[in-house]
Amino acid sequence: MTGKKYIYAFNEGNKDMKSLLGGKGANLAEMTNIGIPVPPGITITTEACIDYFKEGNKLPGNLEEQIWEYMKALEETLGKKFGDNEDPLLFSVRSGSVFSMPGMMDTVLNLGLNDQAVEGLAKKTEERRFAFDCYRRFIQMFSNVVLDIEHHEFEIVLDALKNKKGVEQDNELEAADLEALVADYKKLVKKVMKKDFPQDPKEQLLLSVEAVFRSWNNERAKVYRRINKIDDNLGTAVNIQAMVFGNLGPTSGTGVAFTRNPSNGENKLYGEYLINAQGEDVVAGIRTPQPISQLENDMPHVYEDFVRITKKLESDYKDMQDIEFTVQEGTLYILQTRTGKRTVQAAINIAVDLVNDGIISKEEALMRIQADQLDQMLHTRIDPEAKLNIIAKGLPASPGAASGHVVFNANEAEKRGIAGEDVVLVRTETTPDDIHGIIQAKGILTSRGGMTSHAAVVARGMGKPCVCGAETLKINYADNCIKVGDIVINKGDYISIDGTTGHVILGEVPMIDPEISENFNIILDWADEIKKMDVRANADNPEDAEKAKEFGAKGIGLCRTEHMFMAQDRLPIVQQMILSEDLANREKALEKLLPIQEEDFYGILKSMAGFPVTIRLLDPPLHEFLPNYEELLIEVTELRVRGNNEELKKEKEELLRKVKELEEMNPMLGHRGCRLGISYPEIYKMQTEAIFRACARLTKENVEVHPEVEIPLAISCKELEIIKEMIDQTAVEVKKEFNVTFEYIVAAMIELPRAAMTADKFAEQVELFSFGTNDLTQTTLGFSRDDAEGKFMPTYIEKKIFPESPFIVLDRDGVGELMKIAVEKGRKVKPDLEIGICGEHGGEPSSVEFCHMIGLDFVSCSPFRVPIARLAAAQAAINHK
Amino acid sequence: MTGKKYIYAFNEGNKDMKSLLGGKGANLAEMTNIGIPVPPGITITTEACIDYFKEGNKLPGNLEEQIWEYMKALEETLGKKFGDNEDPLLFSVRSGSVFSMPGMMDTVLNLGLNDQAVEGLAKKTEERRFAFDCYRRFIQMFSNVVLDIEHHEFEIVLDALKNKKGVEQDNELEAADLEALVADYKKLVKKVMKKDFPQDPKEQLLLSVEAVFRSWNNERAKVYRRINKIDDNLGTAVNIQAMVFGNLGPTSGTGVAFTRNPSNGENKLYGEYLINAQGEDVVAGIRTPQPISQLENDMPHVYEDFVRITKKLESDYKDMQDIEFTVQEGTLYILQTRTGKRTVQAAINIAVDLVNDGIISKEEALMRIQADQLDQMLHTRIDPEAKLNIIAKGLPASPGAASGHVVFNANEAEKRGIAGEDVVLVRTETTPDDIHGIIQAKGILTSRGGMTSHAAVVARGMGKPCVCGAETLKINYADNCIKVGDIVINKGDYISIDGTTGHVILGEVPMIDPEISENFNIILDWADEIKKMDVRANADNPEDAEKAKEFGAKGIGLCRTEHMFMAQDRLPIVQQMILSEDLANREKALEKLLPIQEEDFYGILKSMAGFPVTIRLLDPPLHEFLPNYEELLIEVTELRVRGNNEELKKEKEELLRKVKELEEMNPMLGHRGCRLGISYPEIYKMQTEAIFRACARLTKENVEVHPEVEIPLAISCKELEIIKEMIDQTAVEVKKEFNVTFEYIVAAMIELPRAAMTADKFAEQVELFSFGTNDLTQTTLGFSRDDAEGKFMPTYIEKKIFPESPFIVLDRDGVGELMKIAVEKGRKVKPDLEIGICGEHGGEPSSVEFCHMIGLDFVSCSPFRVPIARLAAAQAAINHK
Repeated sequence: MTGKKYIYAFNEGNKDMKSLLGGKGANLAEMTNIGIPVPPGITITTEACIDYFKEGNKLPGNLEEQIWEYMKALEETLGKKFGDNEDPLLFSVRSGSVFSMPGMMDTVLNLGLNDQAVEGLAKKTEERRFAFDCYRRFIQMFSNVVLDIEHHEFEIVLDALKNKKGVEQDNELEAADLEALVADYKKLVKKVMKKDFPQDPKEQLLLSVEAVFRSWNNERAKVYRRINKIDDNLGTAVNIQAMVFGNLGPTSGTGVAFTRNPSNGENKLYGEYLINAQGEDVVAGIRTPQPISQLENDMPHVYEDFVRITKKLESDYKDMQDIEFTVQEGTLYILQTRTGKRTVQAAINIAVDLVNDGIISKEEALMRIQADQLDQMLHTRIDPEAKLNIIAKGLPASPGAASGHVVFNANEAEKRGIAGEDVVLVRTETTPDDIHGIIQAKGILTSRGGMTSHAAVVARGMGKPCVCGAETLKINYADNCIKVGDIVINKGDYISIDGTTGHVILGEVPMIDPEISENFNIILDWADEIKKMDVRANADNPEDAEKAKEFGAKGIGLCRTEHMFMAQDRLPIVQQMILSEDLANREKALEKLLPIQEEDFYGILKSMAGFPVTIRLLDPPLHEFLPNYEELLIEVTELRVRGNNEELKKEKEELLRKVKELEEMNPMLGHRGCRLGISYPEIYKMQTEAIFRACARLTKENVEVHPEVEIPLAISCKELEIIKEMIDQTAVEVKKEFNVTFEYIVAAMIELPRAAMTADKFAEQVELFSFGTNDLTQTTLGFSRDDAEGKFMPTYIEKKIFPESPFIVLDRDGVGELMKIAVEKGRKVKPDLEIGICGEHGGEPSSVEFCHMIGLDFVSCSPFRVPIARLAAAQAAINHK
Repeated sequence: MTGKKYIYAFNEGNKDMKSLLGGKGANLAEMTNIGIPVPPGITITTEACIDYFKEGNKLPGNLEEQIWEYMKALEETLGKKFGDNEDPLLFSVRSGSVFSMPGMMDTVLNLGLNDQAVEGLAKKTEERRFAFDCYRRFIQMFSNVVLDIEHHEFEIVLDALKNKKGVEQDNELEAADLEALVADYKKLVKKVMKKDFPQDPKEQLLLSVEAVFRSWNNERAKVYRRINKIDDNLGTAVNIQAMVFGNLGPTSGTGVAFTRNPSNGENKLYGEYLINAQGEDVVAGIRTPQPISQLENDMPHVYEDFVRITKKLESDYKDMQDIEFTVQEGTLYILQTRTGKRTVQAAINIAVDLVNDGIISKEEALMRIQADQLDQMLHTRIDPEAKLNIIAKGLPASPGAASGHVVFNANEAEKRGIAGEDVVLVRTETTPDDIHGIIQAKGILTSRGGMTSHAAVVARGMGKPCVCGAETLKINYADNCIKVGDIVINKGDYISIDGTTGHVILGEVPMIDPEISENFNIILDWADEIKKMDVRANADNPEDAEKAKEFGAKGIGLCRTEHMFMAQDRLPIVQQMILSEDLANREKALEKLLPIQEEDFYGILKSMAGFPVTIRLLDPPLHEFLPNYEELLIEVTELRVRGNNEELKKEKEELLRKVKELEEMNPMLGHRGCRLGISYPEIYKMQTEAIFRACARLTKENVEVHPEVEIPLAISCKELEIIKEMIDQTAVEVKKEFNVTFEYIVAAMIELPRAAMTADKFAEQVELFSFGTNDLTQTTLGFSRDDAEGKFMPTYIEKKIFPESPFIVLDRDGVGELMKIAVEKGRKVKPDLEIGICGEHGGEPSSVEFCHMIGLDFVSCSPFRVPIARLAAAQAAINHK
């Protein structure tokens, strides 16, 4: 044999050869070598598949030669001949890629049968019905997966036969019926293919191998790879394995079992089997399978063997296994094993159990859990078994699910919510005026606005489900209804939203409550032992801070002061401040705000006593606090046309003028962040004073405070210098007034490329950097999140320009490179500079890993993502030891 | 003498010691050393001034001791004594900083006089009137600049005396009058200061020195430094010089002269003098001075001496000099020389003359001209002598000036413009619908919009004056008038605008036409010999391309295809394309656009035959081509309230819905640039086809074409890959159809930080990078130009956060660093990668210098700035040899 070795017999491989043999092939080899009863067979390598495509869809090199050589060896082992008409050796052919991949060609069973061999098989087994059952299955499967004839064409033929015979189930058909069915199937193939069903077993085999190769590139497989981010160039292996028959009478059968319960992780066999059936019957659900425990009664020896084997496999793989088996006339064969898929809850429980049993290390346990799935356990979610009537899809703006009566305004939401009713507040978009309604609603649904819209930000802060920008919903306030296609939803109707998927669902749906188990906390404690970065939370009020501590946050990485401005009782004062035409009036409004802000900070610093709290000075453009310009314009226009209320018109016109004055073409790049602090130093002065007064009072009460006053959106060290001077001056004044002393630090957000590029100069001014990667992504990519998400981002992901939204998974090549530069420049000037991240990326596992890689000190994320971040930080530490 | 050397006698210094001695001091030293008759004196260094502030406004170290030591030496040289009552030695005290700086303390003359010494001086000179004239001048100057008593307080006293004596001129007052005046002045001082005028000459001198030091930090000086970007930490020197007297009778006098004409550069003495006068009399304009040529008649020997000295000074300084002189009883003294300020026209002529005379090299000549001033010569400008009634100030959106009748709509502007009338089109803002009016107007004035508003961009492209965003103008279309404060300007009234300053001026004003002289071209030819970078122009049509060639552009660096879409006859087709709900309809509209675009490209490629032409594919968000959303909203609201035209309402509502759909929160960061090419490949395909069809036709006509197809706003090499594939495919198709061959290259704009950070991958896809520094500045700084310029940018410059608007002068630390990274990464992968810049920075001298420093191949700017860029590129090459 010359050229590349394209084929491995099962006894030539092992479980570490997945990239060459595919997952299934490697596992069959592993089992063979550790003495598990596996029917013998061979695996054609993924390399052969890759070369098949390279050679323009031709079997490469001497692959065919190698096949026949290995088949010969199998014939010798088994003492039967492939293509023999008396006692035919039959095979299954299965694809097997590196990653499990539904959508590719699956399985052809009983390959090697033809019109002669079926008779030989019938004679040899003395089971004519069995032989023709095998043959009709083979024709159907082969025709479907190799010849591309639709499955249901065969179903039609089969149903016709069953009708004629007056039976319900396949297994009620007799041998003669199946013989007739085979004839009908062959006719069908001839009609479609214009030629006979191939009778030469060698031809059958080669066609099947090629079909497996080609299925790598079928549309379903390509879509699956795109969605699951699997490399298109891996190729698939082909497994050719001697058949064993579960359909050879009542001492035969087939089944599937998990070594542990995949729903909750319980250490108990979990699965089912069917007597007298072949592989796909279990899945097809034609007959109801038996629970695996029943096997102990049906076939006690087989069960005993099986239990022993499952234990052996679990200890070999050191993980819960998903096993396929077949019993042929009382003999057990294992056809497949693989690491079993499980819920996150099961993953946690299994991992903890395996550590406790000394099978795996804590590090291995941590690596077994998908960090981003932890989210599921922290929010109410829709029962995965529930049937849903999904009527629209918006942006998944804040995770969790909610059901409730539709209400269209905040006042009603508040009233009915307080009365104990479950309501979902539905608005085209929310404004600060709606806060009281949002607080009382179970969930928020809007037809406009993106992931950073008011509704989204506020809901995430509250851990409340929210779906945003569901644009197909036509909300009609006047008629109190929503139209979507032909459906009309009226006020009071039941609706459900899933903030994790963005689904809008008609009616009420069953929910599953969040479940925080002891093992959950054990895992996170292990994570804390291993991770290098601290995890803080983004929280704007004492309630969120409490929640964050509960989830293990070690401080607050971002406290946004603007959300405090949006409360209903404060907004009028804030508006008064903004609309002041001069400093004196503005200062009057600020005087009223000072004691209110002081209480805010008092509360949040107290609840985070002993931990650092980063408080960001006012960030959003001022017009965000004002009435909506468009609505105001409509109102004024109406007043002008009607001409019946001159006074109101004048008043509204004046307001319109001021709002217009503050309007911006590109508010994201406008008058916001510390630009406000430069233009209106009195606003930042008030906020700083409020922070320090709160600190002074708490210090007097012996509460330990660690305030970090943070300057947002700086682009120049000079801005920092000016504002820092004001902060330091204010601290001196407040300390003097209260006659106390406390420590504080000044921090800078790094959220614009220029900040990153001049980070060395920034580091001379401040002691802490915090990356605001939402803004940094927007500016580095020139992508307005609100505009991109709903519009061109999907195309960008579809065309693989980005693997995922860079607003969800940090863009390492662009944004990440800038972060690296900032870290290097900053630490060069100030080696002990503290650096963290407080954008939403701070709670996303891949982004957390990147933060670890570039040496950040902490990540900060919304309270509900703190557990994810803790685990992800530990996984990063393990991956980059 | 111990400690720092704080004092230099004039014979100890030279002209290269400006930073220590100040400009005046260094030049007095230089003149002393080359044998020019300069009254002896000393200079106290700028270092002494800096130390004075360091020590909390105290004379530092042993400065006072050093002063008296040097004064003693001067007394010995001159054979007179300071403070002597018989024959007093008098001094002038003058400030002298490194850069000439009006606003600081200027001059005290005749220091050393007191009640006794004035009598001594009278006796010694036998000129009692002269002595008291000196004393009254001294009291007034000293009181003003040292004691801070307002000048006009003394004027009141003087006027009262003149009234009493019934005379008009100071020189009509007699000795006794002046003696009385001195007494009155001293009374005034005592009244204000509550103490007597200081009689001790030493006290007078020390107080004056301190006053000079302190004047460095007075408000006027600080403002001047801020405006002129002079470092606050340089300090000023103090010059103490023996007095010579131009007011000692008819053989004495004083004057100022330039060695060449500062207006046009003519090589002829230019200046004026007064007989029997002291320094400030010439400037004060009390008597009318004589032209300098008259001196030849009045004092032939003095004139001869003066001419000799001016030639000596010019050859020593190798530049035109501005010289102050005094004649005392027939003897000529030079009091100051400095390089003379001149118009750009004079600068050019002088530089060329000096080269022709072999005095300076071409390099030196090029360095003598301020590149950005060339702009003045290329546009019609307002006569600097004209008195202007400035009624408002907007943004200087497009340079040049225009006068014309006010019209408020494009149709009327077009009609009256074609009829030969000068009109200025006044709009709140312009839209593509106004183009025909803009073309016919002399200038454009808007009350809204920034430097990148429609009006600004279009006007700059046409080289037409434009003032934008003049927000104090209240434009009332209904009444056909503009209100600004109390002024009302009606349709048809004359108005003038200055697009270089942003001024809006009432009425017609005298203009100066552009003047392109032979010397102008000589200078630019020299620049071309020396510069390393090519200069291209941004041009969107054949007319601009012609203009650009005229100004010396070697190709087009940016041809914006969107401006072609805005023409009145095309806009409806473009709108049809944008509003198409499906591909088929969009393609129908594109089919109509194809031949039109083909003609555009045919014209521009033909006019730039032989040179490269970079054509940028469609860049702006599509909603820019649609009607204004706000106006539409008002219209729809009106229709709804009136309820009298259901059909129109429905139609407008539908349009509103579509416009709304395309509206973006942050259009600058939205669906634009190559994102359009990704979402709507058919648009880019049409444009590419049009370019290549034009190329094919021109090639057949034997016209040499070098098209460069440019992809805007890319953030990922994958975008480039996708679009490049389409471009290459289209080229193959077109070449085949026309059966010709031509070369083209694909270029990428580098205008987002991510493009810079991933430039290595970009370089794998394209052969040319072009920096779009407007967008790059916006994203790197997170500054929307439109929002920043009118709102917070002025505060940022005032607070020195930026020295100048980063949209005018490239921000080297932020944007520049990113550019450097892009150049390095790009050239690392493709060493011969061509790199240029096509943002507006490409025509600004400091930015051009930076482009040279980082190794760009070309800069591209608007046609009218091409000469500036050529000169700036040469200066950069000289500066960084």
